Amino acid sequence: MTTARRFTNAQIDRLLRPKSVAVIGASDRHGALGCTLLNNLVQYEFEGAIYPVNPKRDVLQGLAVVKDVADLPDGVDCAVLAIPRAFVVDTVRQLAQKGCGAAVIYAAGFSEAGEDGAKDQAELARIAADHGMIIEGPNCLGCTNFVERIPLTFVETNMITPPVREDGTTARAIGIASQSGALAAVLSTTLHPRGCYVSTSVSTGNEAASGVEDYVEWLVDDPATHVIAMYVETFRRPAAFVAAARRARAAGKPIVLLHPGKSEKALASAATHTGAMAGDYKLMRAKLAREGVIFADTLEELADIATIAVTCESLPGANMVILGESGALRGLAFDLAQDVGLDLLHLDDDNAPALRAVLPDFVPVSNPTDITAIGLSEPAIYTNLLRALLDDARVGSVVASIIQSDPVTSEIKFPAIRAALGGGKAGKPLIFAGVDEGATVPPGYIADLRAAGIPWFPSTERAYRAIARLADLAKRDLADRSGDQIVLAGMEEAGGVVPEYRAKALLRAAGIPFPEGRFVPMDQSAVQDAGHDLGFPVVLKAQSARLSHKSDAGGVAVGLGDTGALCQAYRDMAKALHRYDPSIAYDGMLVEAMGARGTEMIVGGKHDPEWGPVVLAGFGGVTAEVLKDVMLFTPDLGVEQVKQGLLSLRQAPLLTGWRGSPALDVDALAELIVTVGRVLTGNPRIREIDLNPVIAYPAGQGVMALDALMLVDG
Amino acid sequence: MTTARRFTNAQIDRLLRPKSVAVIGASDRHGALGCTLLNNLVQYEFEGAIYPVNPKRDVLQGLAVVKDVADLPDGVDCAVLAIPRAFVVDTVRQLAQKGCGAAVIYAAGFSEAGEDGAKDQAELARIAADHGMIIEGPNCLGCTNFVERIPLTFVETNMITPPVREDGTTARAIGIASQSGALAAVLSTTLHPRGCYVSTSVSTGNEAASGVEDYVEWLVDDPATHVIAMYVETFRRPAAFVAAARRARAAGKPIVLLHPGKSEKALASAATHTGAMAGDYKLMRAKLAREGVIFADTLEELADIATIAVTCESLPGANMVILGESGALRGLAFDLAQDVGLDLLHLDDDNAPALRAVLPDFVPVSNPTDITAIGLSEPAIYTNLLRALLDDARVGSVVASIIQSDPVTSEIKFPAIRAALGGGKAGKPLIFAGVDEGATVPPGYIADLRAAGIPWFPSTERAYRAIARLADLAKRDLADRSGDQIVLAGMEEAGGVVPEYRAKALLRAAGIPFPEGRFVPMDQSAVQDAGHDLGFPVVLKAQSARLSHKSDAGGVAVGLGDTGALCQAYRDMAKALHRYDPSIAYDGMLVEAMGARGTEMIVGGKHDPEWGPVVLAGFGGVTAEVLKDVMLFTPDLGVEQVKQGLLSLRQAPLLTGWRGSPALDVDALAELIVTVGRVLTGNPRIREIDLNPVIAYPAGQGVMALDALMLVDG
Repeated sequence: MTTARRFTNAQIDRLLRPKSVAVIGASDRHGALGCTLLNNLVQYEFEGAIYPVNPKRDVLQGLAVVKDVADLPDGVDCAVLAIPRAFVVDTVRQLAQKGCGAAVIYAAGFSEAGEDGAKDQAELARIAADHGMIIEGPNCLGCTNFVERIPLTFVETNMITPPVREDGTTARAIGIASQSGALAAVLSTTLHPRGCYVSTSVSTGNEAASGVEDYVEWLVDDPATHVIAMYVETFRRPAAFVAAARRARAAGKPIVLLHPGKSEKALASAATHTGAMAGDYKLMRAKLAREGVIFADTLEELADIATIAVTCESLPGANMVILGESGALRGLAFDLAQDVGLDLLHLDDDNAPALRAVLPDFVPVSNPTDITAIGLSEPAIYTNLLRALLDDARVGSVVASIIQSDPVTSEIKFPAIRAALGGGKAGKPLIFAGVDEGATVPPGYIADLRAAGIPWFPSTERAYRAIARLADLAKRDLADRSGDQIVLAGMEEAGGVVPEYRAKALLRAAGIPFPEGRFVPMDQSAVQDAGHDLGFPVVLKAQSARLSHKSDAGGVAVGLGDTGALCQAYRDMAKALHRYDPSIAYDGMLVEAMGARGTEMIVGGKHDPEWGPVVLAGFGGVTAEVLKDVMLFTPDLGVEQVKQGLLSLRQAPLLTGWRGSPALDVDALAELIVTVGRVLTGNPRIREIDLNPVIAYPAGQGVMALDALMLVDG
Repeated sequence: MTTARRFTNAQIDRLLRPKSVAVIGASDRHGALGCTLLNNLVQYEFEGAIYPVNPKRDVLQGLAVVKDVADLPDGVDCAVLAIPRAFVVDTVRQLAQKGCGAAVIYAAGFSEAGEDGAKDQAELARIAADHGMIIEGPNCLGCTNFVERIPLTFVETNMITPPVREDGTTARAIGIASQSGALAAVLSTTLHPRGCYVSTSVSTGNEAASGVEDYVEWLVDDPATHVIAMYVETFRRPAAFVAAARRARAAGKPIVLLHPGKSEKALASAATHTGAMAGDYKLMRAKLAREGVIFADTLEELADIATIAVTCESLPGANMVILGESGALRGLAFDLAQDVGLDLLHLDDDNAPALRAVLPDFVPVSNPTDITAIGLSEPAIYTNLLRALLDDARVGSVVASIIQSDPVTSEIKFPAIRAALGGGKAGKPLIFAGVDEGATVPPGYIADLRAAGIPWFPSTERAYRAIARLADLAKRDLADRSGDQIVLAGMEEAGGVVPEYRAKALLRAAGIPFPEGRFVPMDQSAVQDAGHDLGFPVVLKAQSARLSHKSDAGGVAVGLGDTGALCQAYRDMAKALHRYDPSIAYDGMLVEAMGARGTEMIVGGKHDPEWGPVVLAGFGGVTAEVLKDVMLFTPDLGVEQVKQGLLSLRQAPLLTGWRGSPALDVDALAELIVTVGRVLTGNPRIREIDLNPVIAYPAGQGVMALDALMLVDG
């Protein structure tokens, strides 16, 4: 797990802010990559030196052509390789020797194409590492710095530069880091016509030597970047990305991430596409949620979320409110809010006097508030109501859901809505969502809104979905509530599968509740004494690191009500175990007090080699695997946060008291989950802990883990 | 339950194809409803007679003004009331007496505004019924016939008329029936710029005398209408709508319905908005699904589904295929398909030789197929691949998911894609979905696609969602598989709550499996004999119509293993029942054989007064109400269809054999559900049947209903 930055900004500057560029494979053949690339550089008047390389030309685009890579001057910042795959490795080696700082490799056919390709890609990585060289790609579409107008891509580029504003700062802009070149291009195409600026866009392809993690670090420090939009199929260096995301958050630059993989097919497809192993999607989400990353599920959402984040000075909080103009749209808003998981603040005449004051008598305060068509004759209502909503501390974001109709209607409504922000900063977003997509709104009105910091959306669906994703971030309590690590005593002796009695002994010391028990030798009188000591009924379980499925082997007997039953069970078990596998040596027997019945939960801990420790917990029992009513908890969550999570499970009503059954001890369950997290962080050699089942008792009566299994690095 | 049409087309023609129109409250005051309405009529050159009515004017818009309703000629087709609410009822009465055929009432303040308003609305209904008059509204925005260019609305109207094509037919168009005037207007605004025509749009408001059901009947017969788009908050006459929907289906006119109410808040909002009681949303969905209605969940979806339905000659079947141009978009497509419930056909090199034949070697056949950027240099690949896909009988619809970029790229791709349909009819839709929303596509290309029958969508998300809703229709087997009704013998004596022993006796005759049992008098020796007769263990249950919660009263004893236990249970129960409520008289005792354990299911039947009979079934047990893992089955479904439904429940793996437990008898469970449906249709007095629990045994061993309750109309 490497978290340190691999490259300085100065190193990456040689790719993203080069002073000199060599075009290997420069061409004048229409459609050739080396032709479009050179066109791009010349057309947008790249200010540094350009070295076209082509053995068969003397001049291209009025520039003197270098015949061979060997003839390039030393220390060119960046070389772009628009040449066939076969020549790539040797050329990069030559470039490295000449002190070239960065290489862009368009060619495909490396790790995504089988063993030979992977070997060549490894060689590229080796060269890069040896020479401190930045390699973008292979199998990428290049990069474009829109601020300094440097297009190192063969995609036809519309060079829209974020303007410098009156105060000398550049306009807010979105930096793009994408493992797919197509997606990076598509994203710029989508954002630009909306009046959203892009600072720098990098497509990373196969990431032979540098990846999204490295470029995000650069974007965090780039003064022209205010929001970071990402498309990622596989994080190759999760811990490095976590570190970068943490820096982005500290810098106030939201990261919006589109990462396919919710469906199994998408995961499989990503592996084919990038030649990388698919990671654990849910674990990635759980970990990055804690770093303030905002998740988009579709390309529409990625662009829409980025649009809000770059247009508004602040992000939406929880509790959206809607100004609407029709009763029919109220019902649709409620349904959609429920579908996308958006909380609408409850407002009424009594709890919102400031709103009551600005509305006509016949319009009740509500959310959505239906102001009817009255705004057409009294447009000041838009301004006044929106201002009152923006001033209300309970409100996290405000949507004006508007029937735009035609230019005449737009002329009435748009300026009145724009006036609500009045040049000031509300501390929360005001978003305009058209209800009638396709209405003829003069484009100037939409541009005016944007300039005032009010994003415009063609439909309420789009706006609500994007706000829901952003409000999800606002609802997360991102404070680090990690408790002290718990270092288990005696771990040095543990390795491989740790049998139940030892796992329980280790974990009991950490405060995890298990039934009272006695570990005794394989001896009937010892077993009998233990039963007598504990009091009946008891449970008897055979113990061996080699016996992972005790029940299958007949190694578990429950509900033993007296000494006779216990002794009989011991004798039967001894025979059954021998029949099952005579070669297994047993450490002994665990005799335990048999606990009361309760609701079966499961708690499991895992130390992922890439993402680190995480605890999975939820409902157990027969339908556990069918319903998968579980969730992941990271170890930095406190008891309260874990409780919130547990109460969001589908069967949560069973925890809070259902149909006369008592509320269960959710506090104790949350404590247990937090403790498992602390144990995982304190003992990095633990790969897995399984507590299954964990019985939850009525509130105040705690929880009890009936079984325990641990897997420890050897 | 009225299914008969209330109005002839000729009656509704007087509203929607009037030859003469009176404008009550005609005005020259800018912004007045009677002014905009008159403007609309004059501007669009209404060909019939126009009678402006206004006591204070002589001429309006060059038309002679009638001073008073009394001065109107007899038999005017339609009067539009642009007057205050207070004058509405009297005016309508006057109009009716003069033989006016239809009235449009804009004014609000009727049933949605309390008791007085409801009373006046009832009076409007009475007048309409007495005179066979059509009343649109009150509280509506009017209607527009775009084909005959008749705008009876105060909304600024863009009169776009479906053109007459070379073969003399009019272009395919969408008819709109909406309870919300705002939604009707918004829908036209949205559809027109897409090149989708609207035939006639009606907003029904409070539906005093005629409602969406009536207008849909008219639209089904309207030759200019090919698709019907609806916004409905409450069906006031469900059975009439079912009949209309059935006719629409027979006529090949798809109905697309947007009906808020998935969330409780939306249901509540609808009631406030229209003044109508909210119906049972899930029941509505279950019933209308069987009539071929297509459901939209959002306004975007309503317009998008209607766009596909009106543009394409055929609707999408199941099994969509995608032609794509980037590996990154494959993963996103898989995730989105899973989210919206869309089946992607599995295609590979082996199962699709016709596709293999048209693709370059380096492009594997797949779905989505990623043709890479090769189409830019070989655009014929688009045409050939799309043709091959359209020709493949397994394919239900084809989406071209395209990076449009710029005019140069569009020029290459659009004509090649359009050529795939080649003027012919593929029998399945080809849909163009842009990947890069906002790309500068010359509008002519999009219009050309549409003219060729290929809808264009700005994003894949939009296209996939709409296709998913349409494919859902294709996946429904709409054949009527109703079995014979089962008329229960002895029903004439049943009324109110039917106690368990009688319900079981009635239902057992229909073939519903119950445990073997004996109903005996309240007498220990009779109980004892019954136990002896059945064989132990047995169950003992007290029987009375007044005892709806047997268990609470101590009226149930299970697991009685011998005569002694049975007798003891009888004595204990007698005491407990007396303690519980000494006033209850008991019919007797039910002694039943105690069945084996199994998986608890629930099956319930209900005869809804509006929607008719329906059966609810699914998983029972402790978490039944928490998980609500149940669904509704209409009685026209056959055993196979019911099985399909059961196998789509969340916990379905428990039915098909989970982790070594046997598959359960889903056939028997489906049979039981079908039987309950047949009982409901054969005995309309039954309001409810509850079989809870129904125990499902391993396949071949059937199911068993342990309890039964019936509620019968008195």
